[in-house]
Amino acid sequence: MFRGLNFPQPTCPPAPHVKEEFAVPSHVEEVKESMAAFAGHHAASGRRVVLITSGGTKVPLESRTVRFLDNFSSGRRGASSAEYFIESGYAVIFLHRHRSLYPYTHMFATINMLDALKFTNEGASSNSPEVVVNQQVLPNIAKVLKQYQKVKESKLLLPIEFSTLSDYLHLLKAAAQALSTIGSKAMFYLAAAVSDFYIPASEMPEHKIQSSNGPLQLSMNMVPKILSPLVKDWAPQAFVISFKLETDATILLEKAQRALETYRHQAVVANVLDSRRGYVVVVTPKSQDELILTEDDERNEVEIEDRIVSNLTSAHTKFITQQRS
Amino acid sequence: MFRGLNFPQPTCPPAPHVKEEFAVPSHVEEVKESMAAFAGHHAASGRRVVLITSGGTKVPLESRTVRFLDNFSSGRRGASSAEYFIESGYAVIFLHRHRSLYPYTHMFATINMLDALKFTNEGASSNSPEVVVNQQVLPNIAKVLKQYQKVKESKLLLPIEFSTLSDYLHLLKAAAQALSTIGSKAMFYLAAAVSDFYIPASEMPEHKIQSSNGPLQLSMNMVPKILSPLVKDWAPQAFVISFKLETDATILLEKAQRALETYRHQAVVANVLDSRRGYVVVVTPKSQDELILTEDDERNEVEIEDRIVSNLTSAHTKFITQQRS
Repeated sequence: MFRGLNFPQPTCPPAPHVKEEFAVPSHVEEVKESMAAFAGHHAASGRRVVLITSGGTKVPLESRTVRFLDNFSSGRRGASSAEYFIESGYAVIFLHRHRSLYPYTHMFATINMLDALKFTNEGASSNSPEVVVNQQVLPNIAKVLKQYQKVKESKLLLPIEFSTLSDYLHLLKAAAQALSTIGSKAMFYLAAAVSDFYIPASEMPEHKIQSSNGPLQLSMNMVPKILSPLVKDWAPQAFVISFKLETDATILLEKAQRALETYRHQAVVANVLDSRRGYVVVVTPKSQDELILTEDDERNEVEIEDRIVSNLTSAHTKFITQQRS
Repeated sequence: MFRGLNFPQPTCPPAPHVKEEFAVPSHVEEVKESMAAFAGHHAASGRRVVLITSGGTKVPLESRTVRFLDNFSSGRRGASSAEYFIESGYAVIFLHRHRSLYPYTHMFATINMLDALKFTNEGASSNSPEVVVNQQVLPNIAKVLKQYQKVKESKLLLPIEFSTLSDYLHLLKAAAQALSTIGSKAMFYLAAAVSDFYIPASEMPEHKIQSSNGPLQLSMNMVPKILSPLVKDWAPQAFVISFKLETDATILLEKAQRALETYRHQAVVANVLDSRRGYVVVVTPKSQDELILTEDDERNEVEIEDRIVSNLTSAHTKFITQQRS
């Protein structure tokens, strides 16, 4: 077909670059390929794909880094949300801070694993004793392990790690480009706590800052808002959710709305530090959905991420339908 | 003896305070009592006690903290050293950063625990299946679990957590006072990576710093050197080891020596960021002991902490003998 006809290649504008002062992680191309393959595979079998970012970013103060600026985030929201997305039929790319909480294993975050292990009765005196999980300490372990193994087998979870802000920015860009091929089937769920400030490589001392030099004056630049090229250029058809965490509830909703006007993405999950585990507002250009855990919910160990994911997957369905029509 | 004679109580100068701008953790008195009881109990049965500090300190930039300054430290050196001290007959108070590496469990740091668990053959189809550790994934688990259980039973390890710099300073002071009663039998092994800089509570904004205000200018004060009152006032008879980590090897030994002259403690463990797992120098006023792992050592999974602890426990023995004579 079309043999002999010479169609010109469509000329795309080059994707805007992440500023050069953010060092490119050496494995970014390899990761991008694995993300593209993952997204392509799952989209081909009818699945939607969500890219979850999770955990805080590390902002080095020295190039051989001893000191760094960080953002409060255990990664709990991201890890827990990943589980609900998978339950809802999504494939998940989990772009998370090294050593932050992880789907399914976050139940171990508050205990010492060795306190949950014991020898079997027969094993205690043997030379190669069997070590078993004490299910009085971890009553859900069998259920969780089954889920985890099933997810692993079905390859529904692709974990990618970052530590520094630079890693994060480059890997998110790579993810956006990898997911652009599946259009509106892609969701971005940007729950990571990303620094607003950084020190450019050119202004960073090589070695550990010496305290003998006296008090520290730090002058930090603004981190470019990556949401802007992500929505406009890298993944313009995707369904994009950002998160807004404040400590001051009085400015929260206004800030969420302003973000929607600025970046023109689909929704902001707005939350306040102290109440974030029981109350969030999903803000869209047309609506504000309050999601609240009642005392009953808390007794039944309902997690707010269950509600958030349920709200957003429905909205994503509508979004996909509208794109088609 | 001396009945009827009225000896005046020795009047001690009041212990210098940790500056008021470092908020006192609410549980400090309770922790101090438990540390004093722990030290008293073990010293009475002839054991020495080491206080290990481990992990980095968190320095908040806002009083409702979203952002903070941190120091690079996984806590590996402290966690691993604790094991060797216990093996050498010490009781260990482990003052560590929340969620940093922990004695015996640090072997799990690099794996996902769920990857190391499996169902027993019989269990797979049962309703309450047994979950066991896959010893192909964790070949040392039985040995480590036995050690851990023995240490727990004999109560040789007292874990205390900190997160912020303020917590650290107050808890270290409390520890020093709690250990002062056992004199030269106490060792301080100060491996934590403590910030040199902080923002006083009085200059800290309450709420999350807004990026809409533009680039960030931070002006940080010097953290008072706690080693000075610790050696002079809080635990003047103890054997005190500080750590010096640099990225620039050329200034390391000079800085270690200067620290010894300034604080008049017993030794500095000097190490360089890139080589810290295979090479350290134990610097005392009279000696410099280079501790090096050979390729053979590395093949045999020897840890440098084994050598450090062995060097320092010998030095501690000499120190105790000299104090007596």
